[in-house]
Amino acid sequence: MSTEIRLDHHRELRIGIPEAILCEGKTDEHLCEILEEADRLGAALLLTRLPRERLAALPDRLRAKLDHEPVSRTAFFGQPRAIETRAKVAIVSAGTSDARVFREVARTLRFHGRACREFHDVGLAGLWRVMERVEEIGSHPIVIVVAGMDAALPTVVGGLVKSALIAVPTSNGYGVAAGGESALRATLASCSAGITVVNIDNGFGAACAAIRILSAIDSATKSEVS
Amino acid sequence: MSTEIRLDHHRELRIGIPEAILCEGKTDEHLCEILEEADRLGAALLLTRLPRERLAALPDRLRAKLDHEPVSRTAFFGQPRAIETRAKVAIVSAGTSDARVFREVARTLRFHGRACREFHDVGLAGLWRVMERVEEIGSHPIVIVVAGMDAALPTVVGGLVKSALIAVPTSNGYGVAAGGESALRATLASCSAGITVVNIDNGFGAACAAIRILSAIDSATKSEVS
Amino acid sequence: MSTEIRLDHHRELRIGIPEAILCEGKTDEHLCEILEEADRLGAALLLTRLPRERLAALPDRLRAKLDHEPVSRTAFFGQPRAIETRAKVAIVSAGTSDARVFREVARTLRFHGRACREFHDVGLAGLWRVMERVEEIGSHPIVIVVAGMDAALPTVVGGLVKSALIAVPTSNGYGVAAGGESALRATLASCSAGITVVNIDNGFGAACAAIRILSAIDSATKSEVS
Amino acid sequence: MSTEIRLDHHRELRIGIPEAILCEGKTDEHLCEILEEADRLGAALLLTRLPRERLAALPDRLRAKLDHEPVSRTAFFGQPRAIETRAKVAIVSAGTSDARVFREVARTLRFHGRACREFHDVGLAGLWRVMERVEEIGSHPIVIVVAGMDAALPTVVGGLVKSALIAVPTSNGYGVAAGGESALRATLASCSAGITVVNIDNGFGAACAAIRILSAIDSATKSEVS
Amino acid sequence: MSTEIRLDHHRELRIGIPEAILCEGKTDEHLCEILEEADRLGAALLLTRLPRERLAALPDRLRAKLDHEPVSRTAFFGQPRAIETRAKVAIVSAGTSDARVFREVARTLRFHGRACREFHDVGLAGLWRVMERVEEIGSHPIVIVVAGMDAALPTVVGGLVKSALIAVPTSNGYGVAAGGESALRATLASCSAGITVVNIDNGFGAACAAIRILSAIDSATKSEVS
Amino acid sequence: MSTEIRLDHHRELRIGIPEAILCEGKTDEHLCEILEEADRLGAALLLTRLPRERLAALPDRLRAKLDHEPVSRTAFFGQPRAIETRAKVAIVSAGTSDARVFREVARTLRFHGRACREFHDVGLAGLWRVMERVEEIGSHPIVIVVAGMDAALPTVVGGLVKSALIAVPTSNGYGVAAGGESALRATLASCSAGITVVNIDNGFGAACAAIRILSAIDSATKSEVS
Amino acid sequence: MSTEIRLDHHRELRIGIPEAILCEGKTDEHLCEILEEADRLGAALLLTRLPRERLAALPDRLRAKLDHEPVSRTAFFGQPRAIETRAKVAIVSAGTSDARVFREVARTLRFHGRACREFHDVGLAGLWRVMERVEEIGSHPIVIVVAGMDAALPTVVGGLVKSALIAVPTSNGYGVAAGGESALRATLASCSAGITVVNIDNGFGAACAAIRILSAIDSATKSEVS
Amino acid sequence: MSTEIRLDHHRELRIGIPEAILCEGKTDEHLCEILEEADRLGAALLLTRLPRERLAALPDRLRAKLDHEPVSRTAFFGQPRAIETRAKVAIVSAGTSDARVFREVARTLRFHGRACREFHDVGLAGLWRVMERVEEIGSHPIVIVVAGMDAALPTVVGGLVKSALIAVPTSNGYGVAAGGESALRATLASCSAGITVVNIDNGFGAACAAIRILSAIDSATKSEVS
Repeated sequence: MSTEIRLDHHRELRIGIPEAILCEGKTDEHLCEILEEADRLGAALLLTRLPRERLAALPDRLRAKLDHEPVSRTAFFGQPRAIETRAKVAIVSAGTSDARVFREVARTLRFHGRACREFHDVGLAGLWRVMERVEEIGSHPIVIVVAGMDAALPTVVGGLVKSALIAVPTSNGYGVAAGGESALRATLASCSAGITVVNIDNGFGAACAAIRILSAIDSATKSEVS
Repeated sequence: MSTEIRLDHHRELRIGIPEAILCEGKTDEHLCEILEEADRLGAALLLTRLPRERLAALPDRLRAKLDHEPVSRTAFFGQPRAIETRAKVAIVSAGTSDARVFREVARTLRFHGRACREFHDVGLAGLWRVMERVEEIGSHPIVIVVAGMDAALPTVVGGLVKSALIAVPTSNGYGVAAGGESALRATLASCSAGITVVNIDNGFGAACAAIRILSAIDSATKSEVS
Repeated sequence: MSTEIRLDHHRELRIGIPEAILCEGKTDEHLCEILEEADRLGAALLLTRLPRERLAALPDRLRAKLDHEPVSRTAFFGQPRAIETRAKVAIVSAGTSDARVFREVARTLRFHGRACREFHDVGLAGLWRVMERVEEIGSHPIVIVVAGMDAALPTVVGGLVKSALIAVPTSNGYGVAAGGESALRATLASCSAGITVVNIDNGFGAACAAIRILSAIDSATKSEVS
Repeated sequence: MSTEIRLDHHRELRIGIPEAILCEGKTDEHLCEILEEADRLGAALLLTRLPRERLAALPDRLRAKLDHEPVSRTAFFGQPRAIETRAKVAIVSAGTSDARVFREVARTLRFHGRACREFHDVGLAGLWRVMERVEEIGSHPIVIVVAGMDAALPTVVGGLVKSALIAVPTSNGYGVAAGGESALRATLASCSAGITVVNIDNGFGAACAAIRILSAIDSATKSEVS
Repeated sequence: MSTEIRLDHHRELRIGIPEAILCEGKTDEHLCEILEEADRLGAALLLTRLPRERLAALPDRLRAKLDHEPVSRTAFFGQPRAIETRAKVAIVSAGTSDARVFREVARTLRFHGRACREFHDVGLAGLWRVMERVEEIGSHPIVIVVAGMDAALPTVVGGLVKSALIAVPTSNGYGVAAGGESALRATLASCSAGITVVNIDNGFGAACAAIRILSAIDSATKSEVS
Repeated sequence: MSTEIRLDHHRELRIGIPEAILCEGKTDEHLCEILEEADRLGAALLLTRLPRERLAALPDRLRAKLDHEPVSRTAFFGQPRAIETRAKVAIVSAGTSDARVFREVARTLRFHGRACREFHDVGLAGLWRVMERVEEIGSHPIVIVVAGMDAALPTVVGGLVKSALIAVPTSNGYGVAAGGESALRATLASCSAGITVVNIDNGFGAACAAIRILSAIDSATKSEVS
Repeated sequence: MSTEIRLDHHRELRIGIPEAILCEGKTDEHLCEILEEADRLGAALLLTRLPRERLAALPDRLRAKLDHEPVSRTAFFGQPRAIETRAKVAIVSAGTSDARVFREVARTLRFHGRACREFHDVGLAGLWRVMERVEEIGSHPIVIVVAGMDAALPTVVGGLVKSALIAVPTSNGYGVAAGGESALRATLASCSAGITVVNIDNGFGAACAAIRILSAIDSATKSEVS
Repeated sequence: MSTEIRLDHHRELRIGIPEAILCEGKTDEHLCEILEEADRLGAALLLTRLPRERLAALPDRLRAKLDHEPVSRTAFFGQPRAIETRAKVAIVSAGTSDARVFREVARTLRFHGRACREFHDVGLAGLWRVMERVEEIGSHPIVIVVAGMDAALPTVVGGLVKSALIAVPTSNGYGVAAGGESALRATLASCSAGITVVNIDNGFGAACAAIRILSAIDSATKSEVS
């Protein structure tokens, strides 16, 4: 079976982000093989979509090396990068129902050593909640807005801040909101200019997009200074 | 062919709103027959979805009795009701691209003698535009919000006013916005409580819903006073 | 974690409806925090989409303060408002399969002190059932029609009564009916003028829409009388 | 090119309905070849979806043999069957906007020698219109209901008559009604038992389904009598 | 709660088919009330979508009066009608995966005293299977074809028999076949003329449609003979 | 502008099929540039989706080098390959309404020097038409079936022949058939094993798939013989 | 019940592939009957979509004759064909999450005696992985590419090899990827010419399509040599 | 009518991007009013989705001040910003069919004074085309990939460069590709980490997203240097 797995060791070199493991859809056997391989190489690994229930299928030795967070269903295998001092990313969410997703954003950033600041439960049904924090939000070069249902929050934030803006539609809700298609469409059709979007519930992807932008900023400041 | 048409003369008595004629899908012959019949009875008639180009197919005598407005594609056949003095309905729209629809709302209200006040181009990309007028908007018992694309405006207004709130999603836009499905879903999934929705581009329907509420208010005040 | 929660205490002042808690999607931890906070403030709270099975996860002290109704999956935390004497809302449903939803309407109205009268199992397959009660139904200023599958009931009721009319499509049924998309589309495309619609299964939203209209009526009668 | 065409001459023998020509999608050349072939064989032919504008492309000699009706866009090539004396099919429609379709039903029945009786403009927004004619409608063994938008009419009729019931959803309307998907779903999800459905706008198919049932009735009465 | 239930006792008189109970979506309490009511009246009742697991929730006394069939998930409460001697309905299915549905057809016909003959596992991948039985199938005035996946069977049968033809698309299959939307669309778009369709998996509805046609045949033969 | 175009001259070497030009979506300017470039190189070029009306926009010199076929909307620029002697591909279609597509298949094969044999108007509504030719059809190593609406033909053919089978769903038809989604789904869900599918109306793609298989056969026979 | 089952014993003769049993949707009783029948006839049988959990429902005697593989959920009943010596099929997959499907391809080929070579975990996020093996992949006359999510892999492979190319979209992933509709559409819309597609997750179908092509190759080489 | 228009003059101050005018959906009258207003204020304005045909409806005086580009359907009213010296954005596209969109990207960047470098016709069917330019592409901090049909290009580019990556799916193509839904889904489901997406055909939005990131880079370098 091991012939079915080939890790992409040079990915970080190429794109600035090491390979991560999406556990959903993988068999327990494949998951173990991947961890063994990483362990052998001494590589740190981010695992996503790994619900607590699946941990039991791992051998104790491997499980012991996992730092698992149940709401986001992420795990760090091995040591994440040292964290930078200043938060350049703001994570904004409309309500606690999206915790699953905004914690995935935060955990992914953390694994890659990127600091962030969180602004939660600022849904538009109480506009004052986002208004009183919008200046602080806008002081970050990158803003990630996690929003389900009608996903109106990215539009309002996008009309108020200069920052690069990444929207993560979520699958939370019922009726037309269930599954996140409504939130996805609303963010794509936003009347605020320059909002970008990732897949429904894709907190990992939004964090990676932020990391790409942060790399661009880092390069620019380095070349500028030198 | 005339056996194919039967006007519903008692509708106003039953539901407070007389029958209106949706011209889309009807042949020119049917349209003429309907107008002849209304003319014979001396009945006033609201015609919707009647583009300017179709007027040419009507005989001069009937066309002369039409008050046609091209953007909304509505026409009054005969005399509309006298207009009430105080506007109890606010019409709010995000941008001029929705003129087709918000004028249909206004024209339908006008035909039935209901006054309204219009608040346009208050899209969320410039939040200040709606904020500086929200108090005035909220002073009306009924607020109709016309909104396309991400249709985030009803959510923001709904979180700021007590009024009965009717959202009209519009078909304006391209990509995922085209056809209005995204706007429809966003209004239905709104996180502001108590927003109701009508069909895409259905300015006529929103006005009729307002008329039903106004009837309820009128009855209540009459019975209360007497 | 508590930094993830910010209740919107002034919502009732702004829009006439206090914040309610949609429990679906929230973790047990978040739910407890919210109840603790409400308890601390002595605030009453409506909880929706809280199935009986989740109650076990709450500490006894909090669970004791909940008045839970299993079919609607709603709970009152603390004391609901005193109930008004005269029912101004009629709830109409086609069959008992929609009990989940029409009880959510009734419970939401009850929490906010609004009385209602219920008319059930009046589906169109036996038209006489709605015909013999339609006069009584139409005597209420607001009629909420809960209907799944082909959702033809709102159209028939809408053609017979003057009242403000809110349709709640439900997800009940199989094949093309499953999920409620068919019922939703049918209510939006209704050929009866002035019907408004809320999200699939959104009994809570329909009740809130009714509350907005009732506020408008209350204000009108007050200002008229004084 | 003529090798591309093979008429199915024995179809009437097999299934009781001769081959008809759906003109949409065919080139003018193919259409001519088909008519030439039918002419050569002395066969009568029903043509559907043939808009008036396309007639110009036919040679005079063939066009002269066509009995074309513009609203239904049907044509009889050659002589239709003699018409039976008693109408066993009722065609019911909600409004004149569906004339395109209900005339296709009537023309198809006429071509095959089947008589029908038409009941139009009996939409549910004015329920009395269908109620005062329902007994007469129900006296036909087969009822075809043509209905667009919310397509609630088949449900109401289906709850009131014993007849075999075929619903034809139509594409008429805008917003969610456009294209007929909503009407189709509503008829399929009807809560009246035993309603069958054909494709959107398929007046031809509904008439053919009626012809199949009429054949079954004819056979039964013949075998019973003999 | 009992005020939530109103049986439609006269339905059989009106449409020839007594009210049946769709158990899906109903609470156990509602189900019991309905059976109690039927028991009190001595009425026989057909129950559909009642999986074996739900029987345990019924009191022994009521459960004892049920004749339950697990694959179709139907139950007869009380005595079904006496069965007619000659089968006028043929049920045809492509494979055993659709047993759930074709047994619902058979059971519904049985409850109403209608006999049928079954032709199974005649899928088109082995065309000879349907060809060798098609004459026998076509000797029935009504043919019900149950078909999932690509649902090509109704088209082939419809091109070979004169009978009234009702197609029941099924939800069986995976990928694009899952849920039955593909089968539904294929039956509606069939190139064989005069095929009618019911909702996905709606064996009950197909049987009721057959019963409507059988009533029409019965009436015709009676009036013809007398 | 010419910097916007880069032909892929080595494609034939790599995959056995030279680059073809999909004209839809390209500006007239781009089209001219591409032809000029091919002319300069003396390369032959297949152009698809080039309606007759667009030819006028080309300079006479280039237009003179085009062999254009209007129904398939294809053109050969320069000399197509010499045609092989024995037809190894059968093209089968249900009706002449799909001429647009099956001629695109034939023209694409012709351009690449591949011979084919055509079997048209063999739709299943008259099953005998396909049955009497199926042996001849099955004598070709590759069968391409072009089918719209319910697309049942590939299933029947697939159950009768051993050949490699490629289905091309077409967009022909109305209601649920319009656009080809129903035909596409039916072919993908086919209950005959081993049918493959290309995009709706993609006659070009089906021909290219056949060319790939023919290359495999050619290689095999060559290596086998040598 | 046994009258509900009719195996298609001549299928292999007709199309080169014996009947296989799709277990999903079949009752345990039907499954047993089928195995008993095959056992009686001494026929080997491929069973698909048979999860490990269902094995318990089979009698020991039958279960003992099954060679079951849990990831692909396939079983061989009786002896598969002897395996050919040279692999003519390459199976390529983007990642281990698609193991369910690519093993179904391999097992189906194995049952029919066809050898294959597997190339896994060559997803495009690390393009080098596919590039370094593409020559080897292209040396097989047939390439089956299993790909979920954005399913970009078939396009890249299709642009680099001459082989017949069959894409199997998979349902793996979340958000817009869930269910495989996105992967399906991407493969159908591929800009590489001549890629064919089977139903989502249909590893069995892809293998059967390969077998059809292999038969064509075998016939050609035989006739060529002789 | 002028009361229907309210320009958002401070938008550039707030979000770094001045208001642009989406001409689609606006009446000619509204368009003129907007230009008059801008003219009065001496403000420069970017107009999008303004096809050449609509220019005739503008008064000569206003038209004279427009710099219109027909393929992108954009116009500059007044003077665009001075262009920066070094291109920090790469625009990559698969083929010339997407010219409409990639020129909208380029024109929007130009209007805001941002330089870009274009890489066209690098579709994956000829992988070498993108491979030989990928290093140069990756030297830009921001890469915008315009891609229709299967939209596989962003995945390949995303796996090879570190840059911030924005994908613009386009509506080009037919069958499942028509309208761009397939391209949209493929980009959202991309297996390359950190790709962000904008609405179908939204070249304007992609450029604005790039401008937001460029602002972040500019701020960072300024604060770093100072």
